[in-house]
Amino acid sequence: MHVEDRLKELGIELPPAWDVPSDFRFVRAVTTGNLVFISGHGPRRPDGTHVTGRLGEDLDLDAGYEAARLTAIQCLASLKAEIGDLDRVVRIVKLLGFVNCTEKFGEPPRVMNGASDLLIDLFGERGRHARSAVGMQALPNGIAVEVEMVVEIAPAS
Amino acid sequence: MHVEDRLKELGIELPPAWDVPSDFRFVRAVTTGNLVFISGHGPRRPDGTHVTGRLGEDLDLDAGYEAARLTAIQCLASLKAEIGDLDRVVRIVKLLGFVNCTEKFGEPPRVMNGASDLLIDLFGERGRHARSAVGMQALPNGIAVEVEMVVEIAPAS
Amino acid sequence: MHVEDRLKELGIELPPAWDVPSDFRFVRAVTTGNLVFISGHGPRRPDGTHVTGRLGEDLDLDAGYEAARLTAIQCLASLKAEIGDLDRVVRIVKLLGFVNCTEKFGEPPRVMNGASDLLIDLFGERGRHARSAVGMQALPNGIAVEVEMVVEIAPAS
Repeated sequence: MHVEDRLKELGIELPPAWDVPSDFRFVRAVTTGNLVFISGHGPRRPDGTHVTGRLGEDLDLDAGYEAARLTAIQCLASLKAEIGDLDRVVRIVKLLGFVNCTEKFGEPPRVMNGASDLLIDLFGERGRHARSAVGMQALPNGIAVEVEMVVEIAPAS
Repeated sequence: MHVEDRLKELGIELPPAWDVPSDFRFVRAVTTGNLVFISGHGPRRPDGTHVTGRLGEDLDLDAGYEAARLTAIQCLASLKAEIGDLDRVVRIVKLLGFVNCTEKFGEPPRVMNGASDLLIDLFGERGRHARSAVGMQALPNGIAVEVEMVVEIAPAS
Repeated sequence: MHVEDRLKELGIELPPAWDVPSDFRFVRAVTTGNLVFISGHGPRRPDGTHVTGRLGEDLDLDAGYEAARLTAIQCLASLKAEIGDLDRVVRIVKLLGFVNCTEKFGEPPRVMNGASDLLIDLFGERGRHARSAVGMQALPNGIAVEVEMVVEIAPAS
């Protein structure tokens, strides 16, 4: 099944890829050989606002899971903009998930499941990735979650 | 010398590779080309418990060093499960070490030496890696240290 | 234009590459295939001291930006020591920037621009990288910023 069909099946509409604000000069993603390195993305809602707040204080686990899911969708939109066609994904290789949280919060992995579950539901075995999930002092503009990814792709056909 | 012989010489018995708990769907490691990306692992003791606590508060430098060493052993067990034979290691390329600590703690690198020293004692020059070591607000279930690795391997013979 | 000429044009003198202190056994950088993984570096001044302090408390945004710029220069010095000639850089692939800051600090990305702007001013399009920028509880010896990089290089000619 094409990834785009599976997206529809899951009821996910990919938003336009995030535009890096004009006062920043880095890019959403860089491809080197058959690896794509995707910049840290945040939990951007369809209306352009972001989920902000701190796990263990402002946000509960469900809200964190949903934020991580939104973040994975943002990463996918940037990946699609970078490689043109999500069917080129050979493997989601690695996620690094940063969770904005209190010192006592022990559940960064359960928060990050919001990203991991989406990727595996979408790509199946190709979506099963290595991962780290850690708790952060602070994230850009107080967003709840930031995720970066490494993805293996097939050559363009 | 075979890596397994060197492990014995160092008095290290590799534990069975960590089973990712069933409510998590990521995997221990992913191989892409000749690189293995190893998930963030924690300081799991032989009895299955983990070293928890915060450097600069609950744990001193020796305890942190030992926790990082345990974490590297966990990574090696997962690496062996992924590639079958540790003699396939061409180079330990990169470590990223997360240390659970207070705001005042300035010694994440000395903690992480527990992982680095083990890898270099085991692999010699092949074990000399690039590394970052940073201090974290929170880690999963309050573990003291989390380490992820990138490893270059030779093709299976 | 050769990168070294562009460095002169920008008024940047690369310092000698940082010597990893003798009680640490990791290395500045490791090359695997055509990728160089550069260890986390800090904001080392020409006199050998480092910029220390916490954004949102001891240091303002300009000081953080300058610290990130110094850190990028340190990374470049290590990159040159590793690959011999900076003209071999094909692409700055990925930066991971750690900013020592308070819980309320929302500007890790603006701090990290100090590193990103330098790399893009120096390498042009080849310098446009993927990036994550996050806020940290603690960094080694209280340094303000730590940056690690992945760089694609051309084979030695």
